[in-house]
Parts: sequence; C-alpha cells; structure tokens
Amino acid sequence: MKNFSITGTYTDLYQLTMAQVYYLTGKNDQKAVFDYFYRRHPFDGGFTIFAGLGTLLEVLQDIHFTQDDIEYLKQNGLNADFTDSLKDFKFTGTIHAVKEGEVIFPNEPVLRLEGTIIEAQIVETLLLNILNFQSLIATKAARIRSVSGDKVLSDFGLRRAQGTGGYYASRAAFIGGFNSTSNVKAAMDFGIPAVGTMAHAFIQSYDDELTAFRDFAIHRPDNCILLVDTYDTLKSGVPNAIKVAREMKERGQNLLAVRLDSGDLSYLSKKVRKMLDDAGFHEVKITASNQLDEWVIKSLEDQGAPIDIFGIGTSLVTGAPDAALDGVYKLSFSGGKPRIKLSENLKKLTLPDMKQVHRVMNDDGNFFGADVIIKADEQAPDIMFHPSEPDKSLSLKGMKQEALLHKVLENGKLIATSPSLLEVATYCQKRLGQLPDEHKRFYNPHVYKVGISDTLLKERNELRSQYKK
Amino acid sequence: MKNFSITGTYTDLYQLTMAQVYYLTGKNDQKAVFDYFYRRHPFDGGFTIFAGLGTLLEVLQDIHFTQDDIEYLKQNGLNADFTDSLKDFKFTGTIHAVKEGEVIFPNEPVLRLEGTIIEAQIVETLLLNILNFQSLIATKAARIRSVSGDKVLSDFGLRRAQGTGGYYASRAAFIGGFNSTSNVKAAMDFGIPAVGTMAHAFIQSYDDELTAFRDFAIHRPDNCILLVDTYDTLKSGVPNAIKVAREMKERGQNLLAVRLDSGDLSYLSKKVRKMLDDAGFHEVKITASNQLDEWVIKSLEDQGAPIDIFGIGTSLVTGAPDAALDGVYKLSFSGGKPRIKLSENLKKLTLPDMKQVHRVMNDDGNFFGADVIIKADEQAPDIMFHPSEPDKSLSLKGMKQEALLHKVLENGKLIATSPSLLEVATYCQKRLGQLPDEHKRFYNPHVYKVGISDTLLKERNELRSQYKK
Repeated sequence: MKNFSITGTYTDLYQLTMAQVYYLTGKNDQKAVFDYFYRRHPFDGGFTIFAGLGTLLEVLQDIHFTQDDIEYLKQNGLNADFTDSLKDFKFTGTIHAVKEGEVIFPNEPVLRLEGTIIEAQIVETLLLNILNFQSLIATKAARIRSVSGDKVLSDFGLRRAQGTGGYYASRAAFIGGFNSTSNVKAAMDFGIPAVGTMAHAFIQSYDDELTAFRDFAIHRPDNCILLVDTYDTLKSGVPNAIKVAREMKERGQNLLAVRLDSGDLSYLSKKVRKMLDDAGFHEVKITASNQLDEWVIKSLEDQGAPIDIFGIGTSLVTGAPDAALDGVYKLSFSGGKPRIKLSENLKKLTLPDMKQVHRVMNDDGNFFGADVIIKADEQAPDIMFHPSEPDKSLSLKGMKQEALLHKVLENGKLIATSPSLLEVATYCQKRLGQLPDEHKRFYNPHVYKVGISDTLLKERNELRSQYKK
Repeated sequence: MKNFSITGTYTDLYQLTMAQVYYLTGKNDQKAVFDYFYRRHPFDGGFTIFAGLGTLLEVLQDIHFTQDDIEYLKQNGLNADFTDSLKDFKFTGTIHAVKEGEVIFPNEPVLRLEGTIIEAQIVETLLLNILNFQSLIATKAARIRSVSGDKVLSDFGLRRAQGTGGYYASRAAFIGGFNSTSNVKAAMDFGIPAVGTMAHAFIQSYDDELTAFRDFAIHRPDNCILLVDTYDTLKSGVPNAIKVAREMKERGQNLLAVRLDSGDLSYLSKKVRKMLDDAGFHEVKITASNQLDEWVIKSLEDQGAPIDIFGIGTSLVTGAPDAALDGVYKLSFSGGKPRIKLSENLKKLTLPDMKQVHRVMNDDGNFFGADVIIKADEQAPDIMFHPSEPDKSLSLKGMKQEALLHKVLENGKLIATSPSLLEVATYCQKRLGQLPDEHKRFYNPHVYKVGISDTLLKERNELRSQYKK
C-alpha cells in the first residue's frame, strides 16, 4: 500500500471535467458560492453534530495536484492546457462555518464556501466526504453519550470500521462525547486517550486462565483490566480475577477492572458487582462490550446494570444503521448572480445568495428551538417563515439571536488557530446541554424549527419565478 | 492532514499490551495460528465475496513501527524494552487464503495466518479492518451486478463514503462487478476506468441550460454526458440535449448519453428513450443515478426501464444497511497445541488446529452447494458433519472436491505476484457463475452447507471436554 494522502485527485472525475470546461471558456476567475447542508437527521433523531471541520481546513490548506496526478489526468483524456494549469492549483477560497461540535439542523447552511468556481468544484467531493462522515459519527457518539451519564465510553471499532475511515471515526467519536479509543494511531495523531486490555486469544494461548491473568497483572500492572468470559464468567473468570486482584494488592497495585464481552450484560454485571464487593473490591470497575449501541446502553442503564465503562465498536464507527449523512453542497451564487436549483419538490428547492444562520436563544441561555436563515448582510429579523409552507411564520420580536456562521478561512488562510479536539468536544457537550430535552428523545423527537427571513424568502421566490419562465 | 499510512500503530492498543506481556514472559518466538472467518452473510444474502487480500498482503509486507510510533507507545505506559524491540518489527508470518474474489460462506476459515504470537496479534486489527470492509463492499457490488445483466455499473460514492474508506470501497466494488468509478484517486491507483459527467451546479452557473450543454459538448466532446433534470427533464433537458447532439453530429462527434438524477427513473427513462429514438439518436445512452441499490435496480429492470448505465453511490460504498461484515480472527493453535474458544452457544465454538476448506463440485463444474472444513493435512473426506448439529451429515463419496486455501505469503514474502484487480474481478464473476441461482436469491436464499470432517469434529469435541473440566 502506498502512503495515502488527500491530493487534488481525491475527487469525482466530473469536478475535473466541469473545471476543464470552465477553464477553456475563460471562467478561471469566476467567483462562486456553495452551501453545505443536509436534509435529514441520521438515526431518526432530533439533532446532528457538525464535525470534520478541523480535518477539512487542514486538507484545504495543503491541497494540490502531484505530477503523477497531472500525468494521469492528461493520459485519461483531459485537456493538456487545463491539466498543466493544475500544477499551480491551491485553495484560495474563503469559508464561513458553524463551530465544529455545533448542534445543527436540516436545511440550514452550516458552511459557506466562496472561491473561484474551479476550486469550489474540485474540493466539493472531499468536503462532503469529510463533513458527512465525521458529522454522522459525532452524532452517533452524542446519542450514546446522551444515555450514558458520566460513564466512561471507549471506541473499540477499528476492526469493523470502513477501512481507513476508522481513523476519522475515532476523531469524530471523541467530539461527540467519547472518552477514549482503542485505535492507537488515532489516539496518537489526535491526542485521544488510548485504552487497551486483552483479547480472548491471550487467555486461550495459556493452558489456564489464572496463569494468563497473573502474567498480565505482573507485566501490565497499570490500567490492568482482565477479560473474564473466556471459559465461564461467574465460575472461573471472576473468581480468578479476584485472586489476582488480591495478589496485586499485596504488591501495592490495583486491579482496574474486569471486562464482560458476552452473555447478558445486565444479569452478569449485577452478579459480578456483588462478587467483587463481597471480596472487598468495591473500587474494581466493570467494563462491558459486545454489540452495544445507544439503544442497548439505554436499556442497560434503565435496568440499573452496574457497568462503569462501555466499549462500543461497530455501530459507533460505521454509524449503523444509517451509515451515511445526506449532506449536499449547492451553488447559491455565481457569475455575479444569486442562483437556485429548482425542484418539483418545494422542500428540495435551494436557497440563493450568501447567507447567515441565527439561533434564537431563551433568556436562560438555552436554545429556544428555532434557527432562522437570513441573508449574510441582513440584521436579526423580527419574524421567520417556514421555507416550504409560506403561511407558517414565527415572531422573533425581542428574542436574542446568535449568529452561527463564523469566518474560519480567508483566501485560503486560517483566520485563527483551530480549537483543539478537546475544546471542540467540550463545546459540543455545552451546546447539547443548551438543547431542550424534547429534541434529544430517541422516539419521535420534537422538531426544531428552521425558518427563513422575509428578505430571503422573497429573493428565492423571485428567482424561482424567473427560472420557471 | 498528515500523510496517512498504515504502520504498526494501526491497531487496537490491546494487541500491544498483550504483545508486551508475551515479550516480557519470553514468548517472542512462540508460534500461533489464527483463522479469519465471519458468521453471517451481509444483506441477509446467500453468499459473500472475499476481498481485500491484495491490500492486506501489500500492507503486511511493509508493516513497521516508526520512531514516532515507538516514542508514543513508550510515553503512554508501555514497557521500554518491549517498545524498543518494535524497531525491528516486520511481519514474517505465513498466510494461506482463498483467492481474492472467491465466493465464501459463514464459519469457514477463509484465511489462516501462522506467525509468532506477537506479530499475529499486532496485525489482527488491520487484517480485520481491511478484509471485513472490502468483503462487505464487494458483496454489495456483486448483488447489484446480479440484477443488472451486462449494463454498465459505476461507483459514484466518494462524497457519502466513510471518509477515506471510500478509496478502498472503489477497489472492492470493481472486484464485485462494477465497471468504473467517479473516484479519481482510486481509479488512478487501482487501474479502474474513471468516469465523470457534470453536476447541476455546472448548469446552474449558466443563465440557460442550452448554453451550458453547448459549452460542455465543445470542450469535453469525448464521453460527453449531459445531465437533463436541472429544470425540466422532458420539456427542457432532453430537447436541449437533442439539439446539442445534432450540433455534435455536424462536427463529427457523438453525444454519449443523457443522465437522469431525479424523478421516477422508470417512467422518465421510457419517455426519454422514445424522444431520443424519435430524433434518430438510437445510440445515445441513458444514465441514471439517485439513491440506487440492488432492490431499486431489480425493480427498474423488472419494469423494463431502458437505462444503460447505473451510477450507484451511498448504498454501495457504505454497504448500507449492514455497514459492516462481522468477520473475526480466532486463535486455533499456539504453544504447540490446538486451541478453541468455548462458548455456551455451540454455534460460536471455534474450530481448533490448522485447517483447509474443500468445495464440493458437480460434474458440470458448478458448485454442488457444500464446503467441508478439514484438517490441513487431511485427505478429501467421504462424509461431512454439521458443526453444531452432530446428527446431521452428508455423504461426499465420489464427489469432486477443490481445495480453497492456497499459500500466498511465506515467512513474510509473497509466493507469487498477486493477480491484477481485473483478474480478481474476472475470477469473482466466474465463481458467481458456478454458484447455483438459489443461493443468489434476495429473499430467503437457499442455505449453502458448511460442514466439518469427522477427524476435525472429534478433535474439537475432545478439546471441548478437556476445557470443560
């Protein structure tokens, strides 16, 4: 496997065929504006977490075409003058975005990219690829966090992740509220705490469980977690773990936890807790893994399962069952004019022009439950309208509004140092704390309102009439 | 974003904590054997395609720990003698595997890895990560191919793929039967034909559709495909495409296709076909995209929709709705002894020792519908037994058997040049052709039998009794 890095060819070919036509028709410098938004919350939930911005900004600052890229494109039928021009390609655009870790809602532009139409098209695919995936996983992680109180959540997913996608899944899981990961490379590169215990194979490689536990405790005394379900959890694993815990205590060490990886986790965790407590090991924690997701954890918590640490793999890192966020990137301005994409379906009609999003706030600092999309140069409006049901409106008179889109990149350069991953994760939990509970419900969550200003509504409707002719 | 390459830290931390204990207890050279297998077909289907082997072998030949990796591990609590030993780490094991592109079934070991227990554990995570994902996607692609006859199938998925996982998804899709991809980097690195047309944004960036089509046809005359649904497919898009097709013809060029990306694809493709035919453009093809999967394509084909090229994105590259294959890696031999993992569930009991898999063949060269797992040094057996229902057996007397596991890596070195991706894809279609149709049905497919030999059954049961004591 070659070293893999994201260069200009990390895109759909059509971006380059379109770019070729723009180039050959002299539109190199034509300015365009694109919005990134999505249409439906994943997991039938009531909110989505915006993630991937840090990764995107790193990629955009370095994006270029290698000589190999250019040769390949030339040999595959692209115009030589155009492909030669890609030698000097770099991203020089300007980006406004909501903060990474923000709680976001369907159809509002959470990122606005201004640049030449060529650069804006070429980076579309990587932008969607990064934001769609990390937002999906951060949202899954936030859902899991929402039912886990302050218990420890660890990402165990790399083995079932979608190839190298697992690397970024670990990043996004941390943003959504996870504490740690088993993925060493992600831990190292993103500064996430790494955790690791033992597999069944370790115990199987010994003739008996007790010797395996002893060897592990002696040679890995810090953060020692023993896996107790290889033979028989209650009759063999836990009694052996308690023996080893006593031996560790005599050496002045502490067993951190035992791990359950099969069976009924509620039943077993209660039995195991009692056995540990009866032996005086109140401080030894219980870790559980095996096909966990937000639904199973919620049910375990409802049943009072005394589990301290959850290890979550497949469903977290693949964002199952949805597996994708439906984010799109739509042209809203080019050639000096606002643009829309028509659709028979009024819900899929796009919004023209450069825009801002305001979040309506309650006096107590929590979200009121409504965002309003306005033109970028517009003042906070007094009223918002439903984008596809024009007789529905909501008065915003006297309510506080917070602008969500901030400039993060100007002419290809960062405006300020990006926040650390921990700062992003902290911001995410803060914002989730401001979101009323009714939007966090798993079943039939309350719909958060996203409206548009009168000015924007009029501009869109005028454009629509023009195009219809 | 740093350049990303798979090094030794592309693993779960527990592989390294276990390896540390093996190292510190003097088991550096202890040999171990692990089997890779999975338990359930994805998509409730009747078969799975084995993919990712080529990628895995490339990675294993190059796997190492960088100085940064080692520093990180040392600073994060691993033993310094152990981490220093990783400076010289390389993979020196031997691998037997079924051919990449093979049709495989649950619970049979499709890859056997022999090596030191340390190297075998360290590479577990990357092995599972690569094989699980590519096998999932190749299987999805093969399902889509199975309902698409010889129509052209293109992967359009990168924008909704799970981050950089999309790169390998394109590789796996080609193995499963896709013809091309929009993903330029994957096309370039894996030698897959790249395809690309135009997005709605291209047309929106012009004041009118006809001028956009004309510019595109003039500056990208080869493989020219026009997207016809931006304003109104039947009233604007297709009539404009026909005008441009006439202009191209006058220049001695041909319009390759029109593309539909919304609306009812069956209804629209029939109308569009008639309009093209009435204008004399019988050779202009129809491309369709928009939320396609094997079910939608089957239904379009059943209704006789005259679509020539399908572009499939999200469901292909994420393997939705499953999003993961449940492949596992289990110890079967170590410290000079066969090993099993016990389970209350007889179905989850693992098989000990070094094994081979035989496929039972009909005289006509097709699969009979049964594979038998035997010991590696065993002759073709005359009878096979159900692994968890011991009163069920099947006579194999006089039937041809084909050994599926072949040595591909010996002491870390390739045995022979790996097949090209096209050879792998060709093999996959050949093997699917040998699989009886009843196993390819989407609803309730016939279960392919996987049995074990008498010798292996006895060895497993003896080990089980020993452990139970």
